[in-house]
Amino acid sequence: MKAALLTIGDEILIGQIVDTNSAWISKKLNEIGVKVEKILSIGDTAEEIKWAVNFLMSENDIVVVTGGLGPTKDDITKTVLCEIFDTKLVFNQQALDNINELLGKRNVPINKNNFNQAMVPEAATIFNNKRGTAPAMLFEKNNSYLISMPGVPCEMQYITETYLVPFVKEKFRINNVFHKTLLCSGIAESVLAEMLEDLEDSMPNYMKLAYLPALGFIRLRLSIYDYKPEYQGAVDKVLEEIRKLIGNKILAEEDLKPEIIIGNILKSQNKTICTAESCTGGRIASLLTSVPGSSQYFYGSVVSYDNSVKRNLLGVSSEDLESYGAVSQQVVEQMAKGALELLKTDYAVSVSGIAGPDGGTSEKPVGTVWIAVASKEKILSKKVQFFNDREINIRRATNTALAMMIHFIKGE
Amino acid sequence: MKAALLTIGDEILIGQIVDTNSAWISKKLNEIGVKVEKILSIGDTAEEIKWAVNFLMSENDIVVVTGGLGPTKDDITKTVLCEIFDTKLVFNQQALDNINELLGKRNVPINKNNFNQAMVPEAATIFNNKRGTAPAMLFEKNNSYLISMPGVPCEMQYITETYLVPFVKEKFRINNVFHKTLLCSGIAESVLAEMLEDLEDSMPNYMKLAYLPALGFIRLRLSIYDYKPEYQGAVDKVLEEIRKLIGNKILAEEDLKPEIIIGNILKSQNKTICTAESCTGGRIASLLTSVPGSSQYFYGSVVSYDNSVKRNLLGVSSEDLESYGAVSQQVVEQMAKGALELLKTDYAVSVSGIAGPDGGTSEKPVGTVWIAVASKEKILSKKVQFFNDREINIRRATNTALAMMIHFIKGE
Repeated sequence: MKAALLTIGDEILIGQIVDTNSAWISKKLNEIGVKVEKILSIGDTAEEIKWAVNFLMSENDIVVVTGGLGPTKDDITKTVLCEIFDTKLVFNQQALDNINELLGKRNVPINKNNFNQAMVPEAATIFNNKRGTAPAMLFEKNNSYLISMPGVPCEMQYITETYLVPFVKEKFRINNVFHKTLLCSGIAESVLAEMLEDLEDSMPNYMKLAYLPALGFIRLRLSIYDYKPEYQGAVDKVLEEIRKLIGNKILAEEDLKPEIIIGNILKSQNKTICTAESCTGGRIASLLTSVPGSSQYFYGSVVSYDNSVKRNLLGVSSEDLESYGAVSQQVVEQMAKGALELLKTDYAVSVSGIAGPDGGTSEKPVGTVWIAVASKEKILSKKVQFFNDREINIRRATNTALAMMIHFIKGE
Repeated sequence: MKAALLTIGDEILIGQIVDTNSAWISKKLNEIGVKVEKILSIGDTAEEIKWAVNFLMSENDIVVVTGGLGPTKDDITKTVLCEIFDTKLVFNQQALDNINELLGKRNVPINKNNFNQAMVPEAATIFNNKRGTAPAMLFEKNNSYLISMPGVPCEMQYITETYLVPFVKEKFRINNVFHKTLLCSGIAESVLAEMLEDLEDSMPNYMKLAYLPALGFIRLRLSIYDYKPEYQGAVDKVLEEIRKLIGNKILAEEDLKPEIIIGNILKSQNKTICTAESCTGGRIASLLTSVPGSSQYFYGSVVSYDNSVKRNLLGVSSEDLESYGAVSQQVVEQMAKGALELLKTDYAVSVSGIAGPDGGTSEKPVGTVWIAVASKEKILSKKVQFFNDREINIRRATNTALAMMIHFIKGE
């Protein structure tokens, strides 16, 4: 079974927005064993849309189209789909009821543009979109299907989960897909690859090992695209071998975000955490609180960007700030201890570094970062050296802090 | 002049990573007047790569390829490009010197995989990649060009800025492109579209107006893809008309991120800011500090997720927490005032809300958020009601707070 995604909209082609939808849909389809073969982005022109739809439908069983369904003039997807599928727009009462309900909740008066959203292609099966004013539409042609949905992420997510995934599951018989992902840290991709090279060469050829590096983390993914139960013994053997070779670099054997792994461990330990952040500017706190239910273990954070905040709130010694500088072992350890006391948690993580582009010296160049993790009994700190890019440095510092925290709270 | 982007790698197709590179490259090309016509993602197979390269080169002047150049077994781009361009790998001393230098800095020993990265296609022009071990490669065939570079964002960015953009500028004569973006907030897309409909109908047909909504913000973009100086009078007239119609919804007349707009205003006023965040969990602080030089005006933040932190650090009254709840005008205003005093800044912004999925009540459902902005003289607070998605609620609350802050510090 082959699937393709098509996003429509000049805003992606001129780089004003990042296409996060495609990764999201791909992941959902992948979970049920459907592999996306192509992701294509094109502009808001009838000619491009016609070409892309016909091309992708000719070589795929299902094509998922996002974008171009809004109420404005540059939204032409619906009209063009009518041409492609040789059909016309008809009024749909359920779509209008949904529009009235949504706009009513938001106290927005309905206008002509919204009313037009209740006009739908006669040949399409219509899916009600409870999160937005444009309904989703399913078309069929020569045993290939096309679903068109809005590009607004929460609407796309709702339609994918509620309609697309159940439809695909029911309509197609799909090979089983197997993925096992190991979250690793503290090792370079090329070193990891070398350590696993002999193993990789000896693996059965239905198995595939992929390295997915992401700023301090490497996801190591073992995949089988046509999984059969009799492969399980070989899978277990390969995994056992990997553990032997790189066990101390593995943070978790699940494809979970580090902030979720931390949350799960803290909940199981009934422990709490806080952060004291300088160069990461609240990013660690923001990730930790992105997890539903994080209020159970996350108490808060002091973002101590200015040295006055390090002194006044976290109790960092003025003398040490003066003699060692804000980016030093002394200061980052005092930040962690200060946060532990101030916010009254079991664990604290602190970061102080020079994100750049300014602020570097020959002794402490841009990219120098100190990180500490602490409990009442124990404190660990580490200096890491990154490079020149501010955003990358902030993300790497955040990821390194999360990895240190996972090892720390696991008692490793 | 036509351009296309091609990303190679299963990790995008299975949704494990979001393709942020394409938006970044598109934006850079767009700035110099090159419009990207297609963005295509395919998997790590020779067959797909061959098809995609030949197809995209047949209809574009330049094809930018990212991914598949790493040191591991699933990185096959270089070998396949050799087949397509009928050439072979040869040793490149400059590439090896670069690899040695980079790995030396990181204290990583060079291995066979890295050494292979110094083998480059004989037919390609090689660009040294100062940020990574894989060099970039430029190929030519029938007057169409292809540049292949690593998918690691900081490497891709370096190569795009240092080699690709100068190459394209020099090689091609390009139409002038004109974009003017107005950052708007506090209005629904459909309402905005209705208010501007007559104007849009009366615009010359070389102008295009696009609506780019993003969780509380709408970027309104006026574009001309073959700009001529004689159009400027008409552009000015249209912009003046837009200001008359929706002036009070316009936050800025530049395509800048809100956090950069805030930074620019604060720097011009020589004022400082802090945040007190509950449901946004440090996200506002994280955005404000993503801006280079933000240490000049951003002092810090208290992420007061737990009520104990609201009380102990920000001085929120226990009684008010008890009687009005943490998500209330009383509490959010005390959070802002408390942060102003504690962190000693000129402005503070505070947020308290129910991000979900749990914690909602019939009186205060999930998505209820209070936001306050304060200076020593003045405090403004507002309740907003979002919907069911935790991540969306956090982002919308953050964006609404940033928009309120822009109006507030501009004295509007």
